[in-house]
Amino acid sequence: MSWFRTAVIKSFTKRPCPSKFSSFPRSPFVSLMNFSSETTQEAKSSEIVQYTGLGPTRPNEKPRVVVLGSGWAGCRLMKGLDTDVYDVVCVSPRNHMVFTPLLASTCVGTLEFRSVAEPIGRIQPSISTAPGSYFFLANCKGIDADEHVVHCETMTDGADDLPSWSFKISYDKLVIASGAEASTFGINGVKEHAMFLREVSHAQEIRRKLLLNLMLSDVPGISEEEKKRLLHCVVIGGGPTGVEFSGELSDFIIKDVHERYSHVKDYIHVTLIEANEILSSFDVRLRQYAMRQLTKSGVQLVRGVVKDVQSHKIILDDGSEVPFGLLVWSTGVGPSPFIQSLEFPKSPGGRVGIDEWLRVPSVEDVFAIGDCGGFLENTGKQVLPALAQVAERQGKFLSGLLNRIGKDGRGRANSLGGIDLGDPFVYKHLGSMATVGRYKALVDLRQSKDTKGLALAGFVSWFIWRSAYLTRVISWRNRFYVAVNWATTFVFGRDISRI
Amino acid sequence: MSWFRTAVIKSFTKRPCPSKFSSFPRSPFVSLMNFSSETTQEAKSSEIVQYTGLGPTRPNEKPRVVVLGSGWAGCRLMKGLDTDVYDVVCVSPRNHMVFTPLLASTCVGTLEFRSVAEPIGRIQPSISTAPGSYFFLANCKGIDADEHVVHCETMTDGADDLPSWSFKISYDKLVIASGAEASTFGINGVKEHAMFLREVSHAQEIRRKLLLNLMLSDVPGISEEEKKRLLHCVVIGGGPTGVEFSGELSDFIIKDVHERYSHVKDYIHVTLIEANEILSSFDVRLRQYAMRQLTKSGVQLVRGVVKDVQSHKIILDDGSEVPFGLLVWSTGVGPSPFIQSLEFPKSPGGRVGIDEWLRVPSVEDVFAIGDCGGFLENTGKQVLPALAQVAERQGKFLSGLLNRIGKDGRGRANSLGGIDLGDPFVYKHLGSMATVGRYKALVDLRQSKDTKGLALAGFVSWFIWRSAYLTRVISWRNRFYVAVNWATTFVFGRDISRI
Repeated sequence: MSWFRTAVIKSFTKRPCPSKFSSFPRSPFVSLMNFSSETTQEAKSSEIVQYTGLGPTRPNEKPRVVVLGSGWAGCRLMKGLDTDVYDVVCVSPRNHMVFTPLLASTCVGTLEFRSVAEPIGRIQPSISTAPGSYFFLANCKGIDADEHVVHCETMTDGADDLPSWSFKISYDKLVIASGAEASTFGINGVKEHAMFLREVSHAQEIRRKLLLNLMLSDVPGISEEEKKRLLHCVVIGGGPTGVEFSGELSDFIIKDVHERYSHVKDYIHVTLIEANEILSSFDVRLRQYAMRQLTKSGVQLVRGVVKDVQSHKIILDDGSEVPFGLLVWSTGVGPSPFIQSLEFPKSPGGRVGIDEWLRVPSVEDVFAIGDCGGFLENTGKQVLPALAQVAERQGKFLSGLLNRIGKDGRGRANSLGGIDLGDPFVYKHLGSMATVGRYKALVDLRQSKDTKGLALAGFVSWFIWRSAYLTRVISWRNRFYVAVNWATTFVFGRDISRI
Repeated sequence: MSWFRTAVIKSFTKRPCPSKFSSFPRSPFVSLMNFSSETTQEAKSSEIVQYTGLGPTRPNEKPRVVVLGSGWAGCRLMKGLDTDVYDVVCVSPRNHMVFTPLLASTCVGTLEFRSVAEPIGRIQPSISTAPGSYFFLANCKGIDADEHVVHCETMTDGADDLPSWSFKISYDKLVIASGAEASTFGINGVKEHAMFLREVSHAQEIRRKLLLNLMLSDVPGISEEEKKRLLHCVVIGGGPTGVEFSGELSDFIIKDVHERYSHVKDYIHVTLIEANEILSSFDVRLRQYAMRQLTKSGVQLVRGVVKDVQSHKIILDDGSEVPFGLLVWSTGVGPSPFIQSLEFPKSPGGRVGIDEWLRVPSVEDVFAIGDCGGFLENTGKQVLPALAQVAERQGKFLSGLLNRIGKDGRGRANSLGGIDLGDPFVYKHLGSMATVGRYKALVDLRQSKDTKGLALAGFVSWFIWRSAYLTRVISWRNRFYVAVNWATTFVFGRDISRI
């Protein structure tokens, strides 16, 4: 990589000059413009220093698949890619995949954080060993589809005194799998005062906050009112995440708070606020069962719409005020600013528009999977729900498709031509599961809301829920850890050390 | 606790008035002064609302032991206290004990953080259940020994938008076990740019930083020089902590970095800088063995004195500059600002002066154990080293002593009179252990530097090292976790997800 040395110096020199890129916002790229235009002048003189980053693959190299994101879709794709055919480059702000369905359990110490995170290097080992494959801790800032280049900026985490720097990667095939973002519906104060539950860091925050509130509420000098507020946990959104978190929380309260924080056990309460139906995608009997279970375990179900969020209270549309010590926001997802910034045709809901083969039809060699991609209207297909199983299935499908393409010798940029892509992607819903705490869960095996099918609730489905997830946790290492965590929690109770 | 309600309102009103306390610094207590003086005026009118906090114990209550700190000394003491005789109140900024000897292993993922932290509620359950016993997440700000009162301020962690508030606790017996602080010898820049290794949060920081540097050094656009800097890990201090951390780090590099970060494996280096001898307390043959082992596993040993620390480099006294990406500082400990602020007679080294029974002789009912207490010169005894085993032994001794006192009916404040305290505390050194990585460790069973005795090095002592710690980890739950972690690390390698 000796060419780095020469390249980097250029990359840091700044001289204004007209932009020549189309499909990404201009503003953040002043410095980028400079070196890129500069280095392309450079290119004439030297073949080697062509980019600050990875230049186009040469005939003696494998074609390069660039994957943006490390969620369900991206990781399943990378796992499936044939690394004899392709070099794989992953660009993501986190170096691990999160097993989201079990994230709620980590907030209350049922599971360790580590058990639900899987390093990408384990999912696709060649990324950390093969000479042409890399993981880059960075955010993608723009895509230049004509040039087959993505523009990235390193993620230095603020914490560090390092300035982040920009670089470019040429791709032969690009897969956009950067996921979606929690939707706040433009409600004022959500981002500032609410907590989300999509990353391990979110779960860690929630856990620290919960334990802090439990401890502070026991300290002399606090008013009754403040104590009640600190220990009022409010969950917004009655989807599976919100319901599972409420369930876990009430389990934690019933079993652990009563034993470990008995001084304040009568002050802690959980309220779940939902605008419509909880678990609306589930069978009506399951919904009713869930509501009974949650109520039984002390979760207060409120139907309401949040109008405003302030530091210590939320305002509902009927004007009522709900003070909270912990506010968890899980009202579904919408397109991220990055996806919004892309100038590709969009699907209903503002996702990157794709065809039945998950291609972005307006350009060559670009695909989009998971929560950030949605079928274009002209495909006549519904945009699929933002579910792990959709993302995972799409990742699997696309890895197969790309492997076929690669073995056809069409892995290079602009070489797809009129290739027959075979069967399109068809999504078959395997059903939904959700736990409601206290060894109870729901399993809805109907293929869609309106079809008939098996729908279970209770301990048996809780057992199914656990075993299903245990078998689906990606690596044996994590399976082992999850099993051990569940066992220890069962024997010793949840962990309450605030670290 | 109905008296809280009335009391807290007072505690938040501020009106200046002359202080009446002696043995703690005035400045930070303006608000405290106010309510305390105010509430004592109050006291005349009402018997119940006497303090914002816990008032003196009444005849119908058990005498109260207040423990400042939750380290080895404080936790061992609380574990041993007879809760039929005493109510226990612990004041500490963290709700768990850290098993410090294994902390170094958590930085590189050999052990999970959770495995080395034990919640106080598990060490002394009555603290979370007994009506008169509490854990308060707070810092002690001052001691008023004449009034038998400690002044505390809640630890709200900054993260939270809560203002921290002050409160008072009356004690019958007070145990100062707040530990010591990493000593920086007033070297400029240490606190800003170096990382310590005394809390779980420190280990988490180090781990995140290490993984961040490993990932950033692989991103295009970085210069060779910067890459070398990012991956240069410098450890200051050749005591057991520094040596064990260096050993773990080189293990991590040899086994995991080579496999998981093979792109940058040749850039990462560890340098251990020590002013005198490494492991100076160990037998000379063990020292030489340790140096051979560390060198073999790629740790560069440098003798030097740090003069100045800057954001990306340190300056040694010979003027040479050492650039670093990660700097870990473990040059022993000194008295904390809180201990310095106490106006008790001090031992050599500035610790709280104690007699052979661990009492603070200048006042009634106050004891000091662990790193924050030291024998007064007039006892003719050496100040004991700041070791876990010293702290633990003192905690054990004092719990026994206090239990005897309590059963004598002398648990109340000012009731010790001329009681016979029995045998004084005598410290018998059981020997020292340290691992140097690669399944090698040192075990030095000599009772002091100059006496003869068994001294082992190699795999056998590594085995002794592990089993010794495994048996000494406080709870079965953690024993189980540590064992499981060691097993998984052995089978699957260390974890590298940066969460």
